[in-house]
Amino acid sequence: MYHFILACTECSASYSADMTTLHCTKCNSVLDVAYTAEEAYDVRSNPSDMPVPLRNPADAISLGEGNTPTVNLRNLGDSLGTSHLYAKLEAMNPTGSFKDRGTAVMISVAKEMGVTQVVEDSSGNAGASVSAYAARAGIYAHIFAPASAPAAKLGQIAVYGATTHAIDGDRQAVTDAAVDFANSNGIVYASHNLSPYFIEGTKTFAYEVVERFGDDLPLHIVMPVGNGSLLIGIHRGFAEIEAAGEISRIPTLHAVQAQAVMPLVAAFNGKPAPTTGATIAGGIAVANPPRLRQCIRALGDTGGTAVAVAEADILRWQRQIARQEGVFIEPTSAAAFAGVKALLDMGKIRSSDPILVAATGFGLKDAMPPSDV
Amino acid sequence: MYHFILACTECSASYSADMTTLHCTKCNSVLDVAYTAEEAYDVRSNPSDMPVPLRNPADAISLGEGNTPTVNLRNLGDSLGTSHLYAKLEAMNPTGSFKDRGTAVMISVAKEMGVTQVVEDSSGNAGASVSAYAARAGIYAHIFAPASAPAAKLGQIAVYGATTHAIDGDRQAVTDAAVDFANSNGIVYASHNLSPYFIEGTKTFAYEVVERFGDDLPLHIVMPVGNGSLLIGIHRGFAEIEAAGEISRIPTLHAVQAQAVMPLVAAFNGKPAPTTGATIAGGIAVANPPRLRQCIRALGDTGGTAVAVAEADILRWQRQIARQEGVFIEPTSAAAFAGVKALLDMGKIRSSDPILVAATGFGLKDAMPPSDV
Repeated sequence: MYHFILACTECSASYSADMTTLHCTKCNSVLDVAYTAEEAYDVRSNPSDMPVPLRNPADAISLGEGNTPTVNLRNLGDSLGTSHLYAKLEAMNPTGSFKDRGTAVMISVAKEMGVTQVVEDSSGNAGASVSAYAARAGIYAHIFAPASAPAAKLGQIAVYGATTHAIDGDRQAVTDAAVDFANSNGIVYASHNLSPYFIEGTKTFAYEVVERFGDDLPLHIVMPVGNGSLLIGIHRGFAEIEAAGEISRIPTLHAVQAQAVMPLVAAFNGKPAPTTGATIAGGIAVANPPRLRQCIRALGDTGGTAVAVAEADILRWQRQIARQEGVFIEPTSAAAFAGVKALLDMGKIRSSDPILVAATGFGLKDAMPPSDV
Repeated sequence: MYHFILACTECSASYSADMTTLHCTKCNSVLDVAYTAEEAYDVRSNPSDMPVPLRNPADAISLGEGNTPTVNLRNLGDSLGTSHLYAKLEAMNPTGSFKDRGTAVMISVAKEMGVTQVVEDSSGNAGASVSAYAARAGIYAHIFAPASAPAAKLGQIAVYGATTHAIDGDRQAVTDAAVDFANSNGIVYASHNLSPYFIEGTKTFAYEVVERFGDDLPLHIVMPVGNGSLLIGIHRGFAEIEAAGEISRIPTLHAVQAQAVMPLVAAFNGKPAPTTGATIAGGIAVANPPRLRQCIRALGDTGGTAVAVAEADILRWQRQIARQEGVFIEPTSAAAFAGVKALLDMGKIRSSDPILVAATGFGLKDAMPPSDV
C-alpha cells in the first residue's frame, strides 16, 4: 500500500499506484498522483518538505538535479523592452535540461517498484535524461527518438548505454513504435508525457521559485511548452504551496510554442488543431500533447495565455541572449524569450512586470545557430 | 587603493593591484592575490565569507557558477575497486566546466577596473567561459584557440559573440599569438593561466567541499591538471579555511595528466620535461604550465602525487562512468578517474579511503566517444 494513488485528471476514477497504469480505463484521460489523506504534509516552500511518491526518499536516484540558478537579465530585458527579466537556468541540470527533474522521480519510483527495463520516446532531451538516470539506477533503457534529431542529442542518449531506436517519420510515429515495442516485449512504458510521476518531479521548479523570491513572486512565468510537463508541474507545485498558505497568489503562467507546431495555442483559443510544419525548436515539436487539457487549465487558472512565435524570432533571441548575457540556450528555450516579446507587444505583460523565463535546455545539446556566429 | 596586492609566488616582491601585471619584474614568476592585513576576514567555510578581490562583491558578474552537486558513485567505485567514491559535477556550471568559477572573478575584477576589451587563449573551455562572462559584462573578448579544438568548443566560443582567432600550430603557438595580439593592440591579456584573479575564483571549490563534508573531508581529491588553476585554487581555498581553524587537515591533492602531455608528472618526479604527443584530453594538453612550481607545492604540501594515464584508459573510464552512473564527462575529466585507478594500483590510495574526483567538464563539449556507443 502506497501513500498515494493515481487519480484521473478528468473524471472521479482512481487507481492504485503502479508503473503501468497510464490512462483512466473509464474515460481514457491521463492520470495524476494524488496523496492519501492520512499522508499529512507540511509544505513550507521547501522542496525537501514537499510530497513525493516514494516510500524511501533517501534512496531516490539523484544526479544532483534542480536547485538551478536564477539570473537577472538586464541587458536582454532592455532589448525586449522589459525592466525586470529573470531566467532560471535549467540547462544546469545533470544532462542539460529541466527534464532531469521529472526523470529523477519517475526512475526513482520505477526502481522502488522493482522495474528492470523501461521504454521511452523522446525528441532528445527526455531520452538523454531517462538514459542517464536509468544507467545510474541499473535499469535497462530503450529510447525511441526521431532519426532526424540533432546528432548531439542522439549521441548523448547512446553514451549512457541505452539502446537507441532511431525512427523515421514524424513524432507520432516515434511514440507509436515505442508503445508497440513496450507492449510486445512486456516492458514498462516510462513515458515522460504520460507518467504521473514525471510531473511530481517537475513541480520542484515552483518550490525553488518560492525559495528564491519568497512571496514577492514574479508576476509572470513564461516557458516553452511541448507536452507541457514543466507547465503542469509548475502549476501543481504552486497550487500545493498556495494550499499550504505559504504564498498568497500563483504567478501567471504563459506557454510559448513555435508557429509551425502550435496545438496548445489553437486549443487555448478554441480553434481546431492546425497542420504542423518543421521547427528548429525540436523540444516543443509535439503535435498531439496528451496532457493538453491540463495545460489549458494551468494557463486559464492563472490568467495566462499561449502564444506562437516565428522561426526567425527564435533564432534571433537565441543569439541575442548568448551575446548579451552569456547564456547559451537551445532554440526550444529561446522560443520563450521570443514569446516574452510577443506577450509584451500584445499587452498581456506590462513592461514593468517582473517576468521569469524557464530557460529549459543547454545550447550545446543542439546544432550551433546557423548564421552569423 | 584596493584591499589586496599582487604578491610574487617565488620571491618577496609585491605589486599594487591591476589587470596588466602578470609576472614579477624581479624574478619573472607568476603572481597571487594577497589580502592586506587591515582586511580582516571571518572565514567560516562558506563562500560568501571568503576573501574576494572585489570592492563591491554585490556587483560581481555572475551566471550562477559554483554550488555544483556532489554525488556518490557506488557503481563506478565497485569497478575501480574503491568503496567511497564521490564526484563533484563541475559540468553543471553555466558554460559547462569548472572554468566558470575562475572566470567569474577574473571578469568581475576586469569590469570593476574599467576594462573594456580582453584577450584570452584557451584550448576551448576557458575560451567559452571568458566569452560568456565578457558578454554579460559588456566587455569585448578576443579568444585565441587551436584550430584543432573540437567544433563544439569553437562554436561555443563564437556563440557568445567573442571574436575567435583559430591558430594553427601547437598550444604554445596559440599563447604566443594571443600575447602578440594583446601587446600590439594595447588590450588586457586576461589569461586564465596567469591571472591571479582566476585562482581566487576556483578556490570556491574547496569552500563548497567543506560545506558539503564538514570536517569529515574526503582523504583524497583527484583532478585532471593542465595549467593547474583548479589544483592551485583548491589548495589555496583549503589553506584559508585551515588558517581560520575551521578544518583540522587538508585533503591529499592528486594531479592526473595524460601520458602524452605530462610536464607536471615529470617535474614532480624530478625528471626533465618529456616531449609531448597528441591526447584526446584537450583540456590538459599543456606542455609548459606557467604555474608548475605552485602545482608541485600543492601536491607536496598535502602529501599527494602526480600520475599519468594512457589514452585507452581515459576513453574506457569516460564510457564507464556514463554507463554506470549516468554522468557524461569530457575526456579531460575522465582522465581523473583513470588516475584514481592508477593511484589505487600504486598504493597511493587505499581501497577504503574516501575519494572525491573533480569531474571538470561536460561530455557534450567534446566529440562523442568514438567507439562502442
